[in-house]
Amino acid sequence: MTQISAVLDRADQNFSASLERLFDLVKIPSISTDPAYKADCRKAADWLVKALNELGFEASVRDTPGHPMVVAHHAAMTPDAPHALFYGHYDVQPVDPLNLWENDPFQPSVKELAGGRKVITGRGTADDKGQLMTFVEACRAYNEAHGGLPIRITILFEGEEESGSPSLKPFLEANAAELKADYALVCDTSMWDRDTPAIAAALRGLVGEEIKIKAADRDLHSGLFGGAAANPIHILTEILAGLHDETGKVTLPGFYEGVEETPANIKASWESLGRTAESFLGEVGLSVLSGEKGRSVLELTWARPTAEVNGIIGGYTGEGFKTVIAAEASAKVSFRLVGQQDPAKIRESFRAYVRSKIPADCSVEFHEHGGSPAIQLSYDSPVLTRAKNALSEEWPKPAVVIGMGGSIPIVGDFQKMLGMDSLLVGFGLVDDRIHSPNEKYDLQSFQKGIRSWIRILDALAKK
Amino acid sequence: MTQISAVLDRADQNFSASLERLFDLVKIPSISTDPAYKADCRKAADWLVKALNELGFEASVRDTPGHPMVVAHHAAMTPDAPHALFYGHYDVQPVDPLNLWENDPFQPSVKELAGGRKVITGRGTADDKGQLMTFVEACRAYNEAHGGLPIRITILFEGEEESGSPSLKPFLEANAAELKADYALVCDTSMWDRDTPAIAAALRGLVGEEIKIKAADRDLHSGLFGGAAANPIHILTEILAGLHDETGKVTLPGFYEGVEETPANIKASWESLGRTAESFLGEVGLSVLSGEKGRSVLELTWARPTAEVNGIIGGYTGEGFKTVIAAEASAKVSFRLVGQQDPAKIRESFRAYVRSKIPADCSVEFHEHGGSPAIQLSYDSPVLTRAKNALSEEWPKPAVVIGMGGSIPIVGDFQKMLGMDSLLVGFGLVDDRIHSPNEKYDLQSFQKGIRSWIRILDALAKK
Repeated sequence: MTQISAVLDRADQNFSASLERLFDLVKIPSISTDPAYKADCRKAADWLVKALNELGFEASVRDTPGHPMVVAHHAAMTPDAPHALFYGHYDVQPVDPLNLWENDPFQPSVKELAGGRKVITGRGTADDKGQLMTFVEACRAYNEAHGGLPIRITILFEGEEESGSPSLKPFLEANAAELKADYALVCDTSMWDRDTPAIAAALRGLVGEEIKIKAADRDLHSGLFGGAAANPIHILTEILAGLHDETGKVTLPGFYEGVEETPANIKASWESLGRTAESFLGEVGLSVLSGEKGRSVLELTWARPTAEVNGIIGGYTGEGFKTVIAAEASAKVSFRLVGQQDPAKIRESFRAYVRSKIPADCSVEFHEHGGSPAIQLSYDSPVLTRAKNALSEEWPKPAVVIGMGGSIPIVGDFQKMLGMDSLLVGFGLVDDRIHSPNEKYDLQSFQKGIRSWIRILDALAKK
Repeated sequence: MTQISAVLDRADQNFSASLERLFDLVKIPSISTDPAYKADCRKAADWLVKALNELGFEASVRDTPGHPMVVAHHAAMTPDAPHALFYGHYDVQPVDPLNLWENDPFQPSVKELAGGRKVITGRGTADDKGQLMTFVEACRAYNEAHGGLPIRITILFEGEEESGSPSLKPFLEANAAELKADYALVCDTSMWDRDTPAIAAALRGLVGEEIKIKAADRDLHSGLFGGAAANPIHILTEILAGLHDETGKVTLPGFYEGVEETPANIKASWESLGRTAESFLGEVGLSVLSGEKGRSVLELTWARPTAEVNGIIGGYTGEGFKTVIAAEASAKVSFRLVGQQDPAKIRESFRAYVRSKIPADCSVEFHEHGGSPAIQLSYDSPVLTRAKNALSEEWPKPAVVIGMGGSIPIVGDFQKMLGMDSLLVGFGLVDDRIHSPNEKYDLQSFQKGIRSWIRILDALAKK
């Protein structure tokens, strides 16, 4: 057992040097999507390898067909300690439009906002250099305070996250034995609010489908044919309207297979966050919860599957009026998946339902637009519980386990290819303006982020 | 009582001269939409006035803010004979694309088609110069054979039918006393087929509506908001799908007020025409009757009201996929009306229904796109019955009383402004290519058309 207070103290003593190191990394314009910055991407990788080697890792740059990976290893102080793979990315988004930046995006600085809140400005400060550096600096403090790390750590930093990670899967496959750990630590997410740390345990999956219904072989005059000829818009609207019942549930047979109720304690913790339909929807001009009746807004957006029509078109849509019966009509539909819902089964159930609604003289074409299962991590695994308690000690309010409406592909890749779950902890805030001009990372996020990882590492090592 | 056979003989003797006169009229390029042909429109009006005066009418050109009207009067041989207003139009459609014409559109000629069928080629031969000349030449034969007409006739030829008839209503209003007759004769429609003359007695009306449903004040990410925020496409599809019940009937309250069943004898005559779902829909690649169940194809398109979605759009409709929840979605909807359905009531019922489906935090905008009631003429008025019998004597097959899916505005104007019903008889055929290159009018349509009017005039005069 280590003395955690000594490590936390060391981190605080180190903090201005930690900040300088973050500045050095942010100054490297490692924009992965722009070939002009290819050398800078490698420079960032080299910088990280040097930094990791300095603090006791065995780190190296690994070439890929695109930008290089950084892989580093560090043993634990005790031989039977767990083994974690930490993931982050050193590449950043482009900075256009440059004229909207108040400061040079690659000359980071600490700015004091109204109210005394301090933030680190610059591209990548939040996404993801500042976040990954919380972990690196936590390891540094640990090493300096105790001459070792409490668990075995493998680090994987990629340089293509902002450009679709084309090299990631082949790299995971080729280096599975080296990268496989007991679990992954991913630092690319946000806090619930400035006082409340969050662990993301549920990421919804997605099935995208496009359907095109074809009726007559040409557009028809609705005076001549109206009331006798199939109108593909009618068929389409009936299909789409039939996707939900009056309680807001999706009607597709088998749709809720693999969907489990969120544990009561998790639901209770969500309710305690105080996000109401009014507060959430009010920001976009709405006020009434849509979707499944009897569910809270967080349950609806984090833990329940959906069917949404994302686009629809058919017939005459220009100015004025044209009394036409269209030859075809089409819609784009997406399903958000949760739990163990199977994307292939959902797609097939949807297609069977659509086919059952097509009159004998009409036809339908389907186009697949991606599919990925939900990531449903245990809400009460030992790793999550320990991390949650550790975070709760560091921050003013207890940590919450949250869901996310969207997806983080790397988590699915770790599950599928390396057979390990991830712990998603991050210290971003909703106002960090990632991918936009004037990206920032709260100074508090950086400082307490480092301290958070120290506490988590300590907690994960405990028997 | 006149000897009708003498008049028919006279028409046949006159026929080559009648054809020459039609050629003279067709040669005047009276294109009403193109200002370059303004003088030609007046020339056509003058030509008609001269022709009508020659054969015993008191005819004159009447100026309007647009192209002139032709008005002509002719007394009946007996003082208490009925009074009919005959309507036609002397203006024609433009001829572009000129290179697709096989003959000069304004150099009419008689062409023999494969199989020996003879047609008169040229712009306006069918729409409407050939048709109106059947009536003029019928009057000529009558006058020449008997020195008078069996009924009192007022003629109204307009020169703006192909450009929306802007001067017509003001002219009807200003000259109501002069133009008002017992009924109108309108010669601008078609036969059922080459052997079967037709009288149109039902023209469907139209209500056009556009609705736009607005939800959030911006497009939303379906990962973050899906399942909680109102999706205007869902609201729209539910509204549109709800317009019909499972029997194909329109669900709007009060929608069928004023809709009457077609008389059994009319329905039987329609069935005898042999138009099946297969024959009608087969031409456009369909085979299954849509709309109200248990109705024949002619009933559905002529005598039943409809609700059709003519266009729909919302969300992302480009290539690929975007997981967006749209801020708004819109549709264009038209209702075809029959019988005594009230356009204003139908519109209000639709709007009330739509409003009832809009969640409290969403809104809907309505845009009106025209409205006109159906024209429902009596299927068995004395005028129609006499005309039907007269036509049946002239043609190989008995005349049928038909409906039309679309509308002829003049018929409504005559009803509303002059308080008189119309008898719609015409000798066009579906392959006349009106409004297109190579317009033609069957020589048989012209010759038997003249003879048909002679028989109708004779029949209308009978006590």
